[in-house]
Amino acid sequence: MATIFTKIIKGEIPCYKIAEDDRYLAFLDINPLKAGHTLVVPKNEVDYIFDLDDDQLSGMILFSKKVAAAIKSAIPCNRIGIAVLGLEVPHAHIHLVPMNSMNDINFRNPKLMFTPGEFKEIAEKISSRVIL
Amino acid sequence: MATIFTKIIKGEIPCYKIAEDDRYLAFLDINPLKAGHTLVVPKNEVDYIFDLDDDQLSGMILFSKKVAAAIKSAIPCNRIGIAVLGLEVPHAHIHLVPMNSMNDINFRNPKLMFTPGEFKEIAEKISSRVIL
Repeated sequence: MATIFTKIIKGEIPCYKIAEDDRYLAFLDINPLKAGHTLVVPKNEVDYIFDLDDDQLSGMILFSKKVAAAIKSAIPCNRIGIAVLGLEVPHAHIHLVPMNSMNDINFRNPKLMFTPGEFKEIAEKISSRVIL
Repeated sequence: MATIFTKIIKGEIPCYKIAEDDRYLAFLDINPLKAGHTLVVPKNEVDYIFDLDDDQLSGMILFSKKVAAAIKSAIPCNRIGIAVLGLEVPHAHIHLVPMNSMNDINFRNPKLMFTPGEFKEIAEKISSRVIL
C-alpha cells in the first residue's frame, strides 16, 4: 500500500509544497513544531533512511541543504535543526525545523495550529527563496 | 578557541572511539539517550552543519550511514535515528541514536549513566562492526 507521502508525491493528497526535483519533494509538516517545519522525502518509497543507496542518501542531504537555506532566509531563527525518527510513516523523511533553542525540536512539544491561509503564506515565503 | 570536539579529534581529550577516517570521527556521546548513542563530527571545525560544503556534507552522511549500520548490528533496536540540533557545541555533529520508540530521541529525557568499563565495552562492540 502506498504511504501517505507517496500519495502526496503523486498529488493524490494535497500539500504545501516547498520544492521538488526529479528525486525529492519538500513540503510543510502539517503538525509543525515551529512555523516553517518542513519534511523532505525521496520520491521512491524507502522506509529506513539508511537503506537509501549512497547516491540517493547524499542527494537527499544536499537537497535538504538547499531547502534549509530557504527556510532560514524566510523564517527568523538561529539555524535549521535536522531530525530523522522514522517510526511515524514507513517512508524515509527528514524533518527540517527552524530552531532558536535546543527544545524547539522536541517532538513531545504541542504541535502548532495554522489555518490553510497561514500554511499557504509560509509555504510561499519559503518556496520563493529556494534555489535548486 | 578549539571546540571540545576539536580537542577530542586531536586526542587532547579522550573519547570512546567508534570509527575514524581522514575527514570524520565517530565516538560515543558521554551523556547518552540510549546505549550506543554516537556523535559523528567533521575533523575541520565548522559550526553549522549546512555550512559544510557539498562534498563534506554528503561525505558526513555516508560516513554516518556506515557507523549507523554498525550500531544497529551491535545494539538491539528498531533503527538508528538522526538528530542535528547544533546549539550545544559550536562544531557540527550528527547524533545517531538507537531507537525503539519515537520518544527515544527526546533530548529532554534523562541521560543514561555508564561506568568507563561499560562505555568501553559498548564502543568495542560497535567499532568492531564498522566497515568503512
